[in-house]
Parts: sequence; C-alpha cells; structure tokens
Amino acid sequence: MPNISGQNYIGGARSAKGSDIVHSVDASTGEALPYEFHQATEDEVNAAAQAAASAYPEYRALPASRRAEFLDAIADELDALGDDFVALVCRETALPAGRIQGERGRTSGQMRLFAKVLRRGDFLGARIDRAMPERKPLPRPDLRQCRMGLGPVAVFGASNFPLAFSTAGGDTASALAAGCPVVFKAHSGHMVTAECVADAVIRAAEKTGMPKGVFNMIYGGGVGEWLVKHPLIQAVGFTGSLRGGRALCDMAAARAQPIPVFAEMSSINPVVLMPEALKSRGDSVANELTASVVMGCGQFCTNPGLVIGVRSPEFSEFQERLVGFMNEQPAQTMLNAGTLSSYTRGVQHLQSHPGISHLAGQAQQGSQAQPQLFKADAKLLIDGDPLLQEEVFGPTTVLVEVNDKAELMRALSGLHGQLTATLIAEPADLADAADLVALLEQKAGRLLLNGYPTGVEVCDAMVHGGPYPATSDARGTSVGTLAIDRFLRPVCYQNFPDALLPDALKDANPLGIKRLVDGETTDAAL
Amino acid sequence: MPNISGQNYIGGARSAKGSDIVHSVDASTGEALPYEFHQATEDEVNAAAQAAASAYPEYRALPASRRAEFLDAIADELDALGDDFVALVCRETALPAGRIQGERGRTSGQMRLFAKVLRRGDFLGARIDRAMPERKPLPRPDLRQCRMGLGPVAVFGASNFPLAFSTAGGDTASALAAGCPVVFKAHSGHMVTAECVADAVIRAAEKTGMPKGVFNMIYGGGVGEWLVKHPLIQAVGFTGSLRGGRALCDMAAARAQPIPVFAEMSSINPVVLMPEALKSRGDSVANELTASVVMGCGQFCTNPGLVIGVRSPEFSEFQERLVGFMNEQPAQTMLNAGTLSSYTRGVQHLQSHPGISHLAGQAQQGSQAQPQLFKADAKLLIDGDPLLQEEVFGPTTVLVEVNDKAELMRALSGLHGQLTATLIAEPADLADAADLVALLEQKAGRLLLNGYPTGVEVCDAMVHGGPYPATSDARGTSVGTLAIDRFLRPVCYQNFPDALLPDALKDANPLGIKRLVDGETTDAAL
Repeated sequence: MPNISGQNYIGGARSAKGSDIVHSVDASTGEALPYEFHQATEDEVNAAAQAAASAYPEYRALPASRRAEFLDAIADELDALGDDFVALVCRETALPAGRIQGERGRTSGQMRLFAKVLRRGDFLGARIDRAMPERKPLPRPDLRQCRMGLGPVAVFGASNFPLAFSTAGGDTASALAAGCPVVFKAHSGHMVTAECVADAVIRAAEKTGMPKGVFNMIYGGGVGEWLVKHPLIQAVGFTGSLRGGRALCDMAAARAQPIPVFAEMSSINPVVLMPEALKSRGDSVANELTASVVMGCGQFCTNPGLVIGVRSPEFSEFQERLVGFMNEQPAQTMLNAGTLSSYTRGVQHLQSHPGISHLAGQAQQGSQAQPQLFKADAKLLIDGDPLLQEEVFGPTTVLVEVNDKAELMRALSGLHGQLTATLIAEPADLADAADLVALLEQKAGRLLLNGYPTGVEVCDAMVHGGPYPATSDARGTSVGTLAIDRFLRPVCYQNFPDALLPDALKDANPLGIKRLVDGETTDAAL
Repeated sequence: MPNISGQNYIGGARSAKGSDIVHSVDASTGEALPYEFHQATEDEVNAAAQAAASAYPEYRALPASRRAEFLDAIADELDALGDDFVALVCRETALPAGRIQGERGRTSGQMRLFAKVLRRGDFLGARIDRAMPERKPLPRPDLRQCRMGLGPVAVFGASNFPLAFSTAGGDTASALAAGCPVVFKAHSGHMVTAECVADAVIRAAEKTGMPKGVFNMIYGGGVGEWLVKHPLIQAVGFTGSLRGGRALCDMAAARAQPIPVFAEMSSINPVVLMPEALKSRGDSVANELTASVVMGCGQFCTNPGLVIGVRSPEFSEFQERLVGFMNEQPAQTMLNAGTLSSYTRGVQHLQSHPGISHLAGQAQQGSQAQPQLFKADAKLLIDGDPLLQEEVFGPTTVLVEVNDKAELMRALSGLHGQLTATLIAEPADLADAADLVALLEQKAGRLLLNGYPTGVEVCDAMVHGGPYPATSDARGTSVGTLAIDRFLRPVCYQNFPDALLPDALKDANPLGIKRLVDGETTDAAL
C-alpha cells in the first residue's frame, strides 16, 4: 500500500487544516478505499493560489531548458510508478491495467514532448523589427517581441483519463511548459491516483530545483469555485461536462479581472458514412464503428455519438449489421456512480423521445452500462432538436438516415461545435466532397478520413478542440504541443539593450531559435 | 461635399429601414453637419450579421493571396481619399490635418502589411506530422494542422483614431486578413468619415471580386448590443472605454455560445524616471514628457498618465520644470463633447482626492481641455486606491514620488495591467534593473526604454495589448501583425488525401511557406 497522507499540496508542503474528510471508492464495488483525503479549506485554496503566484516570477523567468529538465524529470517519475500504482488506478476507475499502462506512457511522453518544444523554442514566437533611424517622417525604434507565461493556472482534470487528462496531464504539462505554476484540483474520482502522481511531480520539482509552489494540489468538492475566483489565478484548464465547464466560464467571466477558461466539454463527434464506402465495406465499418463506440465503455470525449448516411440498400444492410454487433457487446463498469447515473439518464432521454427509436441494447439496469443503439429522424438535426446535440457519455450512438446529399448537408449544418468529424469514404465518394469538407471544417477541430475519432495522438499537428460547446474557446487545443499557446502572452521591448532582453531576443540569438526578423524567418544572429 | 447617403451597409447594398436619424457634429463648434444617418433597426443588424455569415464560407476559403489583393485594393482606395476627405475628418474630430494625413498613410500601410502577412503565410501555422505506419504498439496516422478564420467578426472602432482604429483600422484589417467578414459599428463621433472609408472598402471589394457581405457597416447608438448578441457573430474587436469594453465582454460571455472579445480599454502607462537619467537630463525629460502628455490633446490609449521616481534633489528639479512646461501648454479641443465631459469629470475626481495635489494647469472650463498636472501620495498606489488606476483620457498626468527603490517596486506592484510601461534611464540605472524589468513585464504588453509610449509602430513585433484592464485578453494585440491570431483557430486533418487538404498542407507545399514538419521547420515539399 502506498503512503497516502491525503493532505493538500501547498507551496512544497502538505496541509490539512480542514475537518471535512472525503474518500475515494473502488469503481467496481463502490466500497470506500482505506485512505482519507482532507478537503481543502478556503484558506488552503487561497494559500495554494498564493504559493503558485509566489513561484511564478522565478519559475517563468527560468531558461526554457530548465523547465524542460523539470518536465523530463516528471516523465521519468511517472514511468517509474510501478504495478502497485497501476492496480490502484484500476481500482479507482475500473479501467483495465493495459489501458492504464498505455496511458502512463502517453502521459510521460506528453511531458517529454513539451520538453522538446521548450528546447525547440518556437513557442517563444520571437519577432524582431530592427530600428530604422533614418526613416522619414519618423525613425522606427527597435522592437522585439516574445511570449511569456500568463501566471498561475488552475487545472481541473477529467475522470476518464486519470493520468493523461488529470494531475500531470496535458493541461498541467502545457501550463508548466509555458512557465505557469499550477494549482490542480484533484478529481474526486481518483484521489489516490492523484496523490501518487502529485508526489511524482513534487519529487521531480525537488530534483531539478524548481521553486516551491510550482505545483500545488487541493482535494475536495466545491473547492474549485474558490480557486477560479482567486484574483491571482490567471487562466483555467478544464476537461469535463458542459455544465461544469460552462459554470467555470461564467465564474471566470464575472471576476473583477475576467480570465480565460479553456474548457473541453461536450462533443457528439459525427461520423459520416459515404455511399461507396458502405457499398464496398459496410460490414467492416459496422464492426469497427461498434468497437469505437464501446471502447473504454464509451468514456471518451471523442466517442462517436452520431452516425449519419444517405438512405440506400447498403445503408439498410449496414444498419442491420450494426444492430447485430451492438447487441453482442457486453455491459461494462463505468468510471464511477455519477457517470453511470448520467449515462442512464441520457439513455432514458433518447428512449423517451418520440422522434428517436431504439435499435439495439439490453435494458439499462444494475451497476454496469449497457451499450445502446438508437436511430433518430433526420428532421431532429435539421430542426435543431437539442437532445441530439447532447453528448451521452458512454457506450451509445445514434444513427441518422437522410434522403440525399442535400439533406445530409442540411443535417450537418444543424450541428453545434465538435471535437471531431469523421468521413468514412472511398475515393469515388470524395470526388465532389469539397463542400462537405468545408462544412465539417466549420464544425470541428479535427477532421478524420477513414479512421475513428477515439484515439487522440499527442503531437505537433493535433487539435483536440473545436467550436462551442466542444470547447469554450475554439482557438485552443488541449492535446498536442499547440496547447502551450493558451497560457502565453506576447510582450514587446522597445529600444532595450541586449543585457535586459530575454535570451530569445538578444542579438546573438543564444538560443539558436527561428525568429521573424524584419519579416523574414531566420536563425541567424543579428 | 461628398455623397453621403447615411444608409447602413448590408451585404453589398445600402439599407435605411428605420426612422431614427442621427447626426454627426462639428467637433470644434458642436453644430450638426448637414448629413443624415439612418440608425440601424434590429432587423438591419440581424441582416448585417447574416450577410457576413453568408459571405464567410466563400471568403474564408479564398486563397490568402486573393484576400491580400483585397487589402491592397483597400489601401489604394484609402490613399486616394483626397483633401476634401481630410477636411471632413478634421471637422468631425477637431484633429489637425497633418495628423489625419499621417493616419491615412498609417491605415493604408496597415492594410498592406497584413497583405504581406497573407502572402508570407506564417499566420497559417502549418504543422505536419507524417504517418508512421510501422509504429508500435499503434501506427501513427498522418496529421496536419493549419488555421482558418473564426467566422463573422463585429468591430467597434475608437473615436481617437478615426482612421487607424476605426472603419478600416487594425481590427477590421486583421479580421479581413484572417478570412473573417466584418460587421463594423460606425462610431457616432465620425460617421461621415466612416461612410467615406466604408465606400472605399466596398469599392475595393467590388474591384477584387470579394463576396457581397465581406464588409458591412451599421449606424446608430445602442445597436451594438444586438450585434454582439447575434448568434452568427463569432468574435468582437473593440477599442474604447473600460466601461464600454467590459459591457461587451459581459454580453459575449452570457451568450448561449460565448465568444471571445478583444477589447482594448484602459491604461495609465506608467513612466519610471531613474535617478541617473534625472541627473543627466531631467530638463529634457520634463520637456519631452510634457509633449507626450499633451500630444493630440492627450487622446491616446498610450498617453503617460503616471510618472514615478525616487525622491532626490534632481526629482524635485524635474518636478519644477515639469510644472513650468505643463503650465505653458494651451487648451485644446477634444474629439467630442462626451470626451470633454469625461475629462472634466476625471480631473475633478483627481482634484477632490485628499491624497492628490494639483501642481499645474488652468481651471477646467469652456469647450476645451486644459492640460493638468497632479501629484499623488505613493501610498495610494501601494494601497491600491482605485482612482489612481483609472485612465483619465486627456492631457493630464499624475506624478508620484517614492522614498527608495523598494518603495518604487511596491508602488509598481500595485498597478493593474497596462498597455505600456516606460523606463527613462541611463546605463548606470540599468545595471541592477533586472527585477524592475521583470516586474514591468508582468504589468504591461510593451516595455519602452528612453522613449515615450505615445506612438505605436505597426509592425510584426508590436504588442498593443496587456493584462486587464488594458485589454480584456492579454494574449492578443490590436496593433501589429500578431493581431491576426485573435481571429484564427486551428483545424487538424487526419489521413486526408492531398486533393482535399488546404494548400498550406499539401505535400508539394504549393504556397512555399515555412511549415513544422515532424518537429522541424522547413519550406521543403514532402
């Protein structure tokens, strides 16, 4: 058994000032685990924000290479978390061990990728416009711009990725990379996991000599509001429900100083089945799609919740196959009781809608989630029925059959913002698909061809974002290296001497980075 | 006399459905000019947003080079606006002809600079991670990312730059560059100017074959709320008061789909006078600073509203000289009656504050603004007195004397976010100024050394932004080429064939742009 103190992490120390105790539970049995977690008091939340703010001046001013060492050290600590740790995560989340092992690698890999970004230096956005003392009518001063971290960031992790989107997940990694200390609100669904990971982060911070307060973590329910409203917090990262994310956005917008919130919330991830693809491989598509819908008990932000195609004999065959495959899928244990009851409610709403019919799936009962398949009138999408726009988090999807391509375009036009949109298509289908692609570009952050949206690669080109309500700000991504941009702001220096400029902007280009100098990209010294 | 119809610009046509008529006035005499402007009705505002949304799919999909032609054509049309036009702008704003001629060149230059950015292509942020079909345990798909315009943008111009921050100003230029059609709310202070400029934009749109609705303009008071709340509007640009900007932010945040607002609002632009600089050139600093404070009747967002230095005989001499210079400055006509009454009120607030003394300036009376100099207790800054944080828009500034460097740091720490922060310093002053610079970096978007903040260069490296309340989002700038980033969002394509990819991401790199390919910047084809 790991050594779990259950105390809050504040400024490099542990703190347990409150008397409210919360417990983590075994996701499969519902029984409380033998650890006590001390819910943070308002004073402790304030102290955590203050600790992050105290660390900020030193931390943000560190050379990016030093922050890279910190992230690499976190990665090593995460990789070193052993089988006991994996077993605990599995108990808290009911996710299988193989999945958690893979997620551990993804999470450490994410840290190392941000370390690479820090060494590469393009995140600095260095721009130099040299002085033109002879310019008429007025001389141009020397102007240089680069980017710096915004300040302390509050991060709220997700339940469905207890490692990759949680304590040391993408939001934490990108905020730390940007030079922003973090206050993490531990997810109540996996507090033991959170403590083990926080310990790993703290060990890495100590080994690499980071300022105390670079990473803080608080436990408890309802403590997030104090955090988001704290005047020293400068941005928020969140992954979770539309309701939760929107509440944080509203709080942040109502502050004396409004701050940006990057909330990744709700997406139904439409999959468009094109006629030739159904003709040539409807069976395998039905099979693959089923696997994508039920994978991980459907508990992915990019789970395909809407499948749409044009009426045809092949579509009918596909539907029949899909019904067969979905009926074969076993019930699975969900992340926690709250997730299961949301799923049950979501399925009930679909079942009781007069425009929606139930095609496959056992009646929802007991402590596991039954996979479900529904079919909705295309009219619901075209008329903007809100139910079809709502993510039902779990192993379910809704089939929609349209009369022709014109109706397909109208139906897709009715969709709200999405994380992903997928085309299952043969080359012949794509010959005149430019308008369809253009429409999907306006709806989603990522467009896939002949893949399934579950599975989000961590790389430079990834966008895990999209128009509202997929996220609260379509200009960001919470996966991939561009995520760092959310926590940076530009600063310009006018006529500054080399000695007072950040390294990124010094004449000699000591970082050896690419810079935009008088409108040309170069890594040359001036 | 120009041909002014006073009708709203909607989808390439003119519209006057309402019966409310508004007038522009001569800023010097207050008399109404002989033109009638038709306040937009709610239907017309909706139609303008709809026209922009209808233009969006075609406009955003145009090659960037075509949008560049449009911006260049606008620049040519602006340059061709003759002396009659300049005279009208002067009548509406009481700004001198030389200033307006200069501003016209700045505004057309701004358009041409964005055209250059469009041809350069770095705004696209192209990133490519090539497929790794052999990767274990899972293959990596081909992932490619670039950025596209957000959608229709609402722009609210400023009164103080009737060209550069108005109808065809920086927000409009950057939104159009990004591929976002614009609905511009004409400023009530210069509607004749707005109409002449809108005509220039429309001529350019027609000459270059842009879709109707790429640029729309509405007249009237109170019509902005309909615009910001319209579901098709996807972002807002604003330059003006804190109260006005914050109201727009609050409206945008409360929408069913919240949208980003880039509001440039309130800044007092501290100027820090360092001891050696006062010793060696206190007189000339007093002279130059006075010129900066009263330039353009103090009607600049970057007007230096706070001057701070350490107590010394040289500081006292400087103060004496500054009092002398400020007392010599004549009254000037402000942009409009509203600006004058705000100024009068702001000066009264300073005058009646017990911690603030009046050092120079005639009593404020009549129809012109009298330059004023005040001195405030350092304690007010340290204790966070709100009055000292408020921008008084006009020819006034507040001197603050601190006991030593420690108190200087405390006083500056108390400041809210700023557009600029300036150091007046000799090399000897800078030897241990790293902590001061670090503090100012956290407060402002632009740091100047031995310059004055009035005068904002339009270039790649400029930041005209900063932490709240200088702007509503410190991550943006409203001047310089980085302004385009505010209106772009990333989109990722997974396993897309070349034919369906945007040019920025095609294998052959037909645009010849720099791209991040597998982590390396290159302009090579794949």
